Amino acid sequence: MRTLWSHGEQRPAEVLAEEWGASFAFDVRLLPYDVRGSIAHARMLGATGIIQPTEADRIIAGLEEILREWEANPSAPITEYEDVHTYVEARLTEKIGETARKLHTARSRNDQVALDARLFVKDAVAGIQAALRQCQRVLVERAEELADVILPGYTHLQHAQPISLGHHMLAYFWMLERDFQRFSGARERADWMPLGAGALAGTTFPIDRQRVARELGFARVAPNSLDAVSDRDFVIEFVSAGALTMMHLSRLCEELILWTSREFGFVCLEDAFTTGSSMMPQKRNPDLAELIRGKSGRVYGDLVALLTLMKGLPLTYNKDMQEDKEALFDTADTVRGCLTVMAAMLRGARFQLDRLQAATRGDFSTATDLADYLVRQGLPFRDAHDVARRIVMDCLGQGRALEDLSLAELQSYSPLFGEDALAEVSPERSAARRTSEGGTAPERVRDQITLARETLGA
Amino acid sequence: MRTLWSHGEQRPAEVLAEEWGASFAFDVRLLPYDVRGSIAHARMLGATGIIQPTEADRIIAGLEEILREWEANPSAPITEYEDVHTYVEARLTEKIGETARKLHTARSRNDQVALDARLFVKDAVAGIQAALRQCQRVLVERAEELADVILPGYTHLQHAQPISLGHHMLAYFWMLERDFQRFSGARERADWMPLGAGALAGTTFPIDRQRVARELGFARVAPNSLDAVSDRDFVIEFVSAGALTMMHLSRLCEELILWTSREFGFVCLEDAFTTGSSMMPQKRNPDLAELIRGKSGRVYGDLVALLTLMKGLPLTYNKDMQEDKEALFDTADTVRGCLTVMAAMLRGARFQLDRLQAATRGDFSTATDLADYLVRQGLPFRDAHDVARRIVMDCLGQGRALEDLSLAELQSYSPLFGEDALAEVSPERSAARRTSEGGTAPERVRDQITLARETLGA
Amino acid sequence: MRTLWSHGEQRPAEVLAEEWGASFAFDVRLLPYDVRGSIAHARMLGATGIIQPTEADRIIAGLEEILREWEANPSAPITEYEDVHTYVEARLTEKIGETARKLHTARSRNDQVALDARLFVKDAVAGIQAALRQCQRVLVERAEELADVILPGYTHLQHAQPISLGHHMLAYFWMLERDFQRFSGARERADWMPLGAGALAGTTFPIDRQRVARELGFARVAPNSLDAVSDRDFVIEFVSAGALTMMHLSRLCEELILWTSREFGFVCLEDAFTTGSSMMPQKRNPDLAELIRGKSGRVYGDLVALLTLMKGLPLTYNKDMQEDKEALFDTADTVRGCLTVMAAMLRGARFQLDRLQAATRGDFSTATDLADYLVRQGLPFRDAHDVARRIVMDCLGQGRALEDLSLAELQSYSPLFGEDALAEVSPERSAARRTSEGGTAPERVRDQITLARETLGA
Amino acid sequence: MRTLWSHGEQRPAEVLAEEWGASFAFDVRLLPYDVRGSIAHARMLGATGIIQPTEADRIIAGLEEILREWEANPSAPITEYEDVHTYVEARLTEKIGETARKLHTARSRNDQVALDARLFVKDAVAGIQAALRQCQRVLVERAEELADVILPGYTHLQHAQPISLGHHMLAYFWMLERDFQRFSGARERADWMPLGAGALAGTTFPIDRQRVARELGFARVAPNSLDAVSDRDFVIEFVSAGALTMMHLSRLCEELILWTSREFGFVCLEDAFTTGSSMMPQKRNPDLAELIRGKSGRVYGDLVALLTLMKGLPLTYNKDMQEDKEALFDTADTVRGCLTVMAAMLRGARFQLDRLQAATRGDFSTATDLADYLVRQGLPFRDAHDVARRIVMDCLGQGRALEDLSLAELQSYSPLFGEDALAEVSPERSAARRTSEGGTAPERVRDQITLARETLGA
Repeated sequence: MRTLWSHGEQRPAEVLAEEWGASFAFDVRLLPYDVRGSIAHARMLGATGIIQPTEADRIIAGLEEILREWEANPSAPITEYEDVHTYVEARLTEKIGETARKLHTARSRNDQVALDARLFVKDAVAGIQAALRQCQRVLVERAEELADVILPGYTHLQHAQPISLGHHMLAYFWMLERDFQRFSGARERADWMPLGAGALAGTTFPIDRQRVARELGFARVAPNSLDAVSDRDFVIEFVSAGALTMMHLSRLCEELILWTSREFGFVCLEDAFTTGSSMMPQKRNPDLAELIRGKSGRVYGDLVALLTLMKGLPLTYNKDMQEDKEALFDTADTVRGCLTVMAAMLRGARFQLDRLQAATRGDFSTATDLADYLVRQGLPFRDAHDVARRIVMDCLGQGRALEDLSLAELQSYSPLFGEDALAEVSPERSAARRTSEGGTAPERVRDQITLARETLGA
Repeated sequence: MRTLWSHGEQRPAEVLAEEWGASFAFDVRLLPYDVRGSIAHARMLGATGIIQPTEADRIIAGLEEILREWEANPSAPITEYEDVHTYVEARLTEKIGETARKLHTARSRNDQVALDARLFVKDAVAGIQAALRQCQRVLVERAEELADVILPGYTHLQHAQPISLGHHMLAYFWMLERDFQRFSGARERADWMPLGAGALAGTTFPIDRQRVARELGFARVAPNSLDAVSDRDFVIEFVSAGALTMMHLSRLCEELILWTSREFGFVCLEDAFTTGSSMMPQKRNPDLAELIRGKSGRVYGDLVALLTLMKGLPLTYNKDMQEDKEALFDTADTVRGCLTVMAAMLRGARFQLDRLQAATRGDFSTATDLADYLVRQGLPFRDAHDVARRIVMDCLGQGRALEDLSLAELQSYSPLFGEDALAEVSPERSAARRTSEGGTAPERVRDQITLARETLGA
Repeated sequence: MRTLWSHGEQRPAEVLAEEWGASFAFDVRLLPYDVRGSIAHARMLGATGIIQPTEADRIIAGLEEILREWEANPSAPITEYEDVHTYVEARLTEKIGETARKLHTARSRNDQVALDARLFVKDAVAGIQAALRQCQRVLVERAEELADVILPGYTHLQHAQPISLGHHMLAYFWMLERDFQRFSGARERADWMPLGAGALAGTTFPIDRQRVARELGFARVAPNSLDAVSDRDFVIEFVSAGALTMMHLSRLCEELILWTSREFGFVCLEDAFTTGSSMMPQKRNPDLAELIRGKSGRVYGDLVALLTLMKGLPLTYNKDMQEDKEALFDTADTVRGCLTVMAAMLRGARFQLDRLQAATRGDFSTATDLADYLVRQGLPFRDAHDVARRIVMDCLGQGRALEDLSLAELQSYSPLFGEDALAEVSPERSAARRTSEGGTAPERVRDQITLARETLGA
Repeated sequence: MRTLWSHGEQRPAEVLAEEWGASFAFDVRLLPYDVRGSIAHARMLGATGIIQPTEADRIIAGLEEILREWEANPSAPITEYEDVHTYVEARLTEKIGETARKLHTARSRNDQVALDARLFVKDAVAGIQAALRQCQRVLVERAEELADVILPGYTHLQHAQPISLGHHMLAYFWMLERDFQRFSGARERADWMPLGAGALAGTTFPIDRQRVARELGFARVAPNSLDAVSDRDFVIEFVSAGALTMMHLSRLCEELILWTSREFGFVCLEDAFTTGSSMMPQKRNPDLAELIRGKSGRVYGDLVALLTLMKGLPLTYNKDMQEDKEALFDTADTVRGCLTVMAAMLRGARFQLDRLQAATRGDFSTATDLADYLVRQGLPFRDAHDVARRIVMDCLGQGRALEDLSLAELQSYSPLFGEDALAEVSPERSAARRTSEGGTAPERVRDQITLARETLGA
């Protein structure tokens, strides 16, 4: 489908039909899983006497050879087969002859492909979770380093209150932590062993599904053969978890793009993650952050493709379901890759401490602190908020900052202001006083780092 | 937005701006959660001495009165307020006067709405999980009743192999079981208590977030204030779980629609779930099954709306996020309602046993059994499959069924066929022999029912 | 569905079934279209002699009364009817008695609802196109006013080249122009008159569909009765056009949000389109721009809902299709409203000319001009680009701007630089020299304004 | 991205960054468009004297050679370049030396890639429209052949009224006709020539964009340089049109799948479009119809990916937009391919006339005709509908069909029934009498065929 055939002419329908009916071009990626599954199946057939133990041994030896060949040269098997299952059996027949024709006993491609896809998803979850952990570790390290750096915290992209840059880093830590948990959930529901469901109804042979599950490392045997061959929840849940991860990354990328702009100037990215322009000599574009942000669309699209695919399908297997693989592979590669790039990009990001500090001056982001001061003197919060608002409005009208006000001026708004009120407008002090649990005070950020490290250790 | 204002003229921009900035028209639904949250907050403010205990008591009494009023008449508060938070505080001020102005101390609407939405989601999960369990129980009951009824099992909507109708019911049981688990996951990640995050950075007051979390029944305190106010994962994960549930229901509905067609005739639905036509006197349409199938689009749409909404938003709170509520409420209502209707529709469905039985005759769905027979006589599966295929092709050419073949005829294809081969073509026997774990043999179906009951009991 | 029933208890299935089967709660919005369609139908029935002319007159008079009543009080008909069609006929029967029972001759609700929805879409297109034109006119006016104001043009959110602010405004003019055209396309394909298709197959009565089409202002009669009742393309195409419009608005909103940030400071919005904070006294948030950006998700979601809805439905009408209305209404209201708000927000936006001018200083955005200068002296573009790049790199290393360089310094990079090269680094001059067709030179912008006005006039 | 690298290990971030920043792996498909565009650009540079005419000639000769090489061997250029533009310039430099470095004068990759993509879309529209016409022609041919074949028309998948099979075919003709029109709209809005927009602001060179537009066959020059480089509407509108086409095909596929089921048995597909099973010897699955139905998800997903991608991007070009290509190519291939397969599948479909005829017997689908009969005798439609409904109910209770009723029995329901009423229950007659414009009467179907042929001729 995604190959380079077209500019102009179109393949004839019968050729397209054959190409599309075939899935080998993409499901070859399942080969190692298909072979591992077949080995476990053959061993079980031998152990239960459905085929001779010696036949099983011959089959297993042949399959192991196929796997070794493929691992040595994964790009090799570009041949004309309908699908990976057919290819593996054909290769096996070349290697061991007629005995190969016994491998498919008590099995159908319907349960076989379900097995392969589940093994793939379990592996893909492991890969993504490793990448999540890697990214989380970088966030914790940077948070530790930057806990005392103050920058404006934003709501509505307006300066809101001064915050710790480490605190900001950790916000993403917890997003990725939830992603980690969701991928665990996806893995859990991928962990049902489908083989033995046959085409849809189970089999008349005395198979031992528990044995196969154990050998392949599955937590349980799929309890219903119809569901086993027609379920693609595990693919959708995996992609769904990926969509949330990409959403998180798109937010972080948006911030990196903002922060590398001339107007913000909060951060510089390493050269590997920026590029120049073919026309404009001065450009230094945060290309990778933009690409990752854009790739959120890709994974959202995969999710919609899969949900659409399964909508309204009667039981059990329908050929539509062959379309699940490309979206699955695409999401697996995209999410893992984006996390890997993000970890490296964050690790090397150089924060511009002078710009960050300058950004918190004169921005009224400590107006809440003035209000809180008055509350501590006994004013109801709503009234204190009104006083602070009037101070801000007057300053804006006069082109002044909160830092410019004298005690007398403050007191002209409220006699409750005392000498110590003047210190309230310091951004550093503002952040340092937000010591509530989970707050931005550097000491709380350090508590949070401890909690984060425990989470990673767990 | 979804009100009845338009046919022709358009409101002026400023009116629209005010209406849209306001969210009271829909977030009034959060009122009970908002009040519960405010009670817990006030109690904590009193206990920590941030306000006087007597002030806290007054506030709590006022809030409890508001809640009682609302419970007595939920449709009442159709007044012009910006949002539910503003409304509650205004009502409180009417009731208890100035003290009400202290309630918002150490709090922002940003953490407040996050709290309300999380409480709503936790409740909505409970409601949906109850509906899932209700639906699952009906499936188990029907499965028990129908375990011995045989119908054609389908792949590609073609007759594949005979299966037990109870087995078919249970396939949906396990789908809903995974839905149940996913909603548990969504609940778990909704179970972080955000209050105390303030606008974004925490607060300077000596609040006690653990206390609030305990009072409101949260498992943990949100560890990062920025994340606490800008996280909507719990909404998206909830809707995501709902999208999978709707996908499952759309499949079951597709089957019910097929099965109530004249061509299938497998089932009759109760009158409450069908309708007639304004033009055609004979119609009896499975309207509710169609509607539920269609409502999958609604929830998929909610999911895309939310994922789009959050894409690329910088930290922390942005007004875009106000748009999360209608999609959330819509999914909560749709999923729970569809499950409720489905449970009732399934409970009253009358299966047409004669049509089901007739459907398995002469349909070649036991051809696999002939192949398996030959395998048991020692033929490799691939060869056995070839023999069976030739038998089927010849029968089709002659307009005969497998049931019509004599032993001599069978033996003309393979001498391995013995007297007992003739029995292989019985659909009942075919199903009964699929005794592999999770297979369709009625005895296995009964094992599965036991497992399902254990799951429900858990 | 979107009502206020739930907090806790769930309606019983039969009640839900009835509520959902019914569509009156939302399709009442189609009432004026339903009545208009019925009037045209009745007049045709009378004219063709299918009913008596006097009967037709009585029916028409009754329907006109219903329409007048509704226009006087559109919120009135909150009664328990299945749908708007049933309600109108019931009201008619109350008014004129038994004759009302003849109105539905040669008609079904299937073609009737298709008619109503098409009339609605045609009206909604007119409303949205008017709002598009309004927004386009504001853009042209602002462009005219701001043609000579220079600001940094961005790629990758990095300063690229200086541009005219009027040019920037006009970029959105052309986006909206394409939206206008797409809505025209949607209108064209909504303009097929479905009435007379009956339930699905046409009718045995000698109806005159051309007459009905003429009376209702349709361009053509739907040529196939099956398609007429099962087609919802016109809804999807309408929502699809709306999704692109919302995408455009989301981009403009993103820019307004950036530009109102403290870091950019390019623009101030009027108070009607910003809000404060419940906690932070200094806030002035661009709420409406954020909301519109967020509402893109809403319309994307509606689009996905509708595409999902229609996927895989066999011909002809299926009840799933009842779910099309809420998404349609939602998109119609959202798109029109957003355009209305945007037009007003843009009209009142105050651009901060000093900030805009300052932003183009020292930003290297005229480096391309230096390269172009060298090309005009005969250097190949690639080489000229290299020279300019070296100049920029050295300046950055020394903390200098292009504006700071002397002629001698320039010549140290290339002897081709002459006295006139120094002027190349002026942002105003840079913009003024981009006189290629469609370029940013203010004179070209004025050409573009002429073209835009012609487009509006057309 | 979609390559075969992964099972286990992950590429390092820097490698991924380089791979992702690069787009050559997929945008090589734009090579012929890129070269054509460069030839037109070079010719214009020569004609306007921006470069020497002899230089232009040399560049053009070199580019033509590159195009010939690529046409001879499209799979060749698998080398390490950043993108197709860089590759072409590098190849050109190999061929003609330094002069190649002048080609990029007055051009940026931003306007260049916009040009390439627009040329691609225009070609893709042509390919898809040809495939639509091919499919429409088959539908008309089959309609002509099958105009007199009667089958049950369905609403809610319940028998509604007898219809002509030709009429059914033509319903799809009109759907595809609207698709054709929508693709024309997409083409129209792709037909704006972007070259000359430079990076974003136009150029200082005296280029002639009208000349380039003429040479490349564009209808107009893009009027705004910022819009020219940041617009991807034409991609989204193209994919959007494709999504509706796929929705239509998914409906037709659903019907083919239903109709090839044992229960319906209305049609047999040719072998090229069905497959067997690895386990079940009797299977003949409508694989291609299922795959096309499933591929609707793919294109819906592409649409969501693109809409998400563009949401909230500030002007002008952002790297996110590089992600538009794979979705575009995928939709172009999928839609065209599906139409091609569908045309061939329909052409060879063998309708089972006996099964179709049998399906209309005893199904009460002529109950409306009994009601219409009574209306013609003067009964109001609502009353006539009631009578017919009672007749149906009684028949169902007694296990009889309408065909079984005697005149006396009919008259027991209404004295208005005359001798001729008995004929009303014939399905053939029922269809034949639906002679309203666009109705199912074979004579009307033949009118429709004439109209369809005119449409194709246009």
